[in-house]
Amino acid sequence: MKERTLIGELGKHVGKTVSISGWVNVRRDQGKMVFFDFRDRSGKVQGVTLSDSPALETAKTLRCEYVVRVEGVVNKRPEKNVHAGKQNGDIELEIKQIQVLAEAESLPFDMSESGFNLDLTTQLDHRALVLRHPRVRAIFKVQNVIIDSFRQFMQSQGFFEFQAPVITPSVAEGGAEVFEVNYFDKKAYLTQSPQLYKQIVITAFERVFSVNKIFRAEPSATTRHLTEVVSLDAEMGFIESWKDVRDMSEDTIRWILHKVQRLCAEELTLLEATLPVMTEKTPTISLTEALEKLGAPADKDLNPEQEHRLCELIKTETGSDFVYVYGYPTRTKPFYVYPNPENPEFNEGMDLLCRGVEWLSGGRRINDYGQLLKHVKEWGMDPDKISMFLEAFKYGAPPEGGFALGAERMTMQILGLKNVREASMFPRDMNRIDTLLHGNDTSEN
Amino acid sequence: MKERTLIGELGKHVGKTVSISGWVNVRRDQGKMVFFDFRDRSGKVQGVTLSDSPALETAKTLRCEYVVRVEGVVNKRPEKNVHAGKQNGDIELEIKQIQVLAEAESLPFDMSESGFNLDLTTQLDHRALVLRHPRVRAIFKVQNVIIDSFRQFMQSQGFFEFQAPVITPSVAEGGAEVFEVNYFDKKAYLTQSPQLYKQIVITAFERVFSVNKIFRAEPSATTRHLTEVVSLDAEMGFIESWKDVRDMSEDTIRWILHKVQRLCAEELTLLEATLPVMTEKTPTISLTEALEKLGAPADKDLNPEQEHRLCELIKTETGSDFVYVYGYPTRTKPFYVYPNPENPEFNEGMDLLCRGVEWLSGGRRINDYGQLLKHVKEWGMDPDKISMFLEAFKYGAPPEGGFALGAERMTMQILGLKNVREASMFPRDMNRIDTLLHGNDTSEN
Repeated sequence: MKERTLIGELGKHVGKTVSISGWVNVRRDQGKMVFFDFRDRSGKVQGVTLSDSPALETAKTLRCEYVVRVEGVVNKRPEKNVHAGKQNGDIELEIKQIQVLAEAESLPFDMSESGFNLDLTTQLDHRALVLRHPRVRAIFKVQNVIIDSFRQFMQSQGFFEFQAPVITPSVAEGGAEVFEVNYFDKKAYLTQSPQLYKQIVITAFERVFSVNKIFRAEPSATTRHLTEVVSLDAEMGFIESWKDVRDMSEDTIRWILHKVQRLCAEELTLLEATLPVMTEKTPTISLTEALEKLGAPADKDLNPEQEHRLCELIKTETGSDFVYVYGYPTRTKPFYVYPNPENPEFNEGMDLLCRGVEWLSGGRRINDYGQLLKHVKEWGMDPDKISMFLEAFKYGAPPEGGFALGAERMTMQILGLKNVREASMFPRDMNRIDTLLHGNDTSEN
Repeated sequence: MKERTLIGELGKHVGKTVSISGWVNVRRDQGKMVFFDFRDRSGKVQGVTLSDSPALETAKTLRCEYVVRVEGVVNKRPEKNVHAGKQNGDIELEIKQIQVLAEAESLPFDMSESGFNLDLTTQLDHRALVLRHPRVRAIFKVQNVIIDSFRQFMQSQGFFEFQAPVITPSVAEGGAEVFEVNYFDKKAYLTQSPQLYKQIVITAFERVFSVNKIFRAEPSATTRHLTEVVSLDAEMGFIESWKDVRDMSEDTIRWILHKVQRLCAEELTLLEATLPVMTEKTPTISLTEALEKLGAPADKDLNPEQEHRLCELIKTETGSDFVYVYGYPTRTKPFYVYPNPENPEFNEGMDLLCRGVEWLSGGRRINDYGQLLKHVKEWGMDPDKISMFLEAFKYGAPPEGGFALGAERMTMQILGLKNVREASMFPRDMNRIDTLLHGNDTSEN
């Protein structure tokens, strides 16, 4: 057969004989003729095996998901059969030869675009197969663009990418909800955040980012919890104030949304998703102001219901789907968060809310070694367990801050998915690692 | 003070007053005048505080690694003081104002470029500080380019990036040297390879890659072992033969070397590194041919000494630092490797050797479901433990293959580093996770 042509390129080959490779997406046997939709990574095309085609016999044996190589002629469709606006809607492949590259067993459920209506458990039980569905592929295309555009934007702003470690020696920020690893004859832990590492690395590279896995052993099976997620982390030195961090994070989100809009128009349509509105300058209010606006008493944080209401109020007032909330009580946040010098009871940490939930958090950090040591003691931590971190600040660290966002959560929120598991290709939770864990004794390995 | 100018941009501001921010790299107090080298992420510049400068008093209090903001005038140097070919070698900053952003304690050792001569243990004991040294930063600049150019090249070839999981449910490819995670009331494991996941994902996306962490619990502390490394993985469907995989991997390495050459010239000079030579077509020989060439008896693999000698022979014969070796005994390799149909005792796996060690391995995989099941049984594996993987092949998978390379090992080899720990920003081994593990009881957390 001829060299492979991608299905997305067929429009350039009208009147020519080509060879395509891909999967049987749909087969419609009409007796004398057999129609197909074929699918490869670049798209879909209709094929027809006419009654006099030498491939007719083979065509009749094919089923959905068979992998085939097909030689045929690219024909213009008659005007009345043109599907305007659809990929390859004006052409058709007249099939001359079919070579079966791999067979497929009968599908356990309907995988067609219109018939696909599985509950999430079934989807995850058959993740390997379900990944092929256009709706599911669309989710990961969007996630891909989120992650890739994050890296692009960071690089464009002079940020250096580093590889944050997964295995950590101790639990720096509190011991709850951490996974323990049997590390030779010792214990180690899966990282909950690259926070301390990115703060170290800015003292050598000034501006750094990482795309890394973080882990939470949360014994809860809600629609918002995964045990393993992708964290997009940034940290920057030589800031004037926490507002530089806010601005950089805002520009980052704006860039990501712009790229998703531009590169995923088709996917957004398929998933019926509408991107949130980011106005020219995202509204930014203190926690105290936010609580006042909500008519709520002073508190250390917003609860989920308040987050929702605040987003609605801001949307009505300004048209923005996003709002920054800053200035949390210092003692309720980690030791490294920078207290406001004029009012040290409140810190210069911030969260970005959108559509009722947190998308991103960050803020300014303490860079003065003496102040950092004082906080370590006040927070009741053991300085020996973070000695490497402290060394970075002992020898001169610039005023700095940073932010982090979760790739799965952002994917979920952008696309309006109901469960964060849909936004993870291989979601892990307390009940599932690929397959369900109960009745699946992995302890014998 | 004025807005910050990056040190690397100072050449554009001759005669002007500017403000820079950075670290004191060197201070030379000559009594009436104080000279500095300042450093930021973009480079270095000499500064001078003249005897009549209002900043003289502050200048005398500064020490190495102080973080400062400095305002001054960019002056051309007199001809006799020009350092040709050196960044900012023709200018000097005449210091008018100094603001100390953060102090630094006295350094525990000489951090100057010429005086830096620490054993690796001391370097790792002070990783946070040592990361600032230009030699160390240069290593990670090169690693960064390796990883980033891998992604770029994969994207240019239509590969889709996916996030391979860290937590795995069972030990698919043999239980030795795997880290166990206490996963709620069950056991889980840290991934040793994204192999099975990338094979699943190509059945939806055809061509995929990932940059991911893999883990080996090897109880050995050699110069080549880390417990956590970055793996660069690729997998592609619709290949004609394993040679398509070889060619793609060759093009990938060629592209990475090209980018390192182009973007890291300065770093390569600093580290006195020479890139290996990749000729127009990398020599490719079977294991049997390789052993014959070495005058060695038939065997299931090359030993390290044979790998070295083979590379030397090939270099002498062809000028190539690289050589592909393919065709290993089928039963000595994992179940998924594709046996040569004409001689099933040997498989279509391959390794790329360079300068005596393996840089990359890969090959064609079995895509036929029946053949795969047969292998699973012959290899004595439990199909239930890889049911998700098997499902991908049950429903039609194209002929496929892929490859993987380790980012730290490639960094080490390209730069001629003596120990792979130098090529990991935060190296983990059986004795160290940031700090040494003995005498550091982490079990109390």
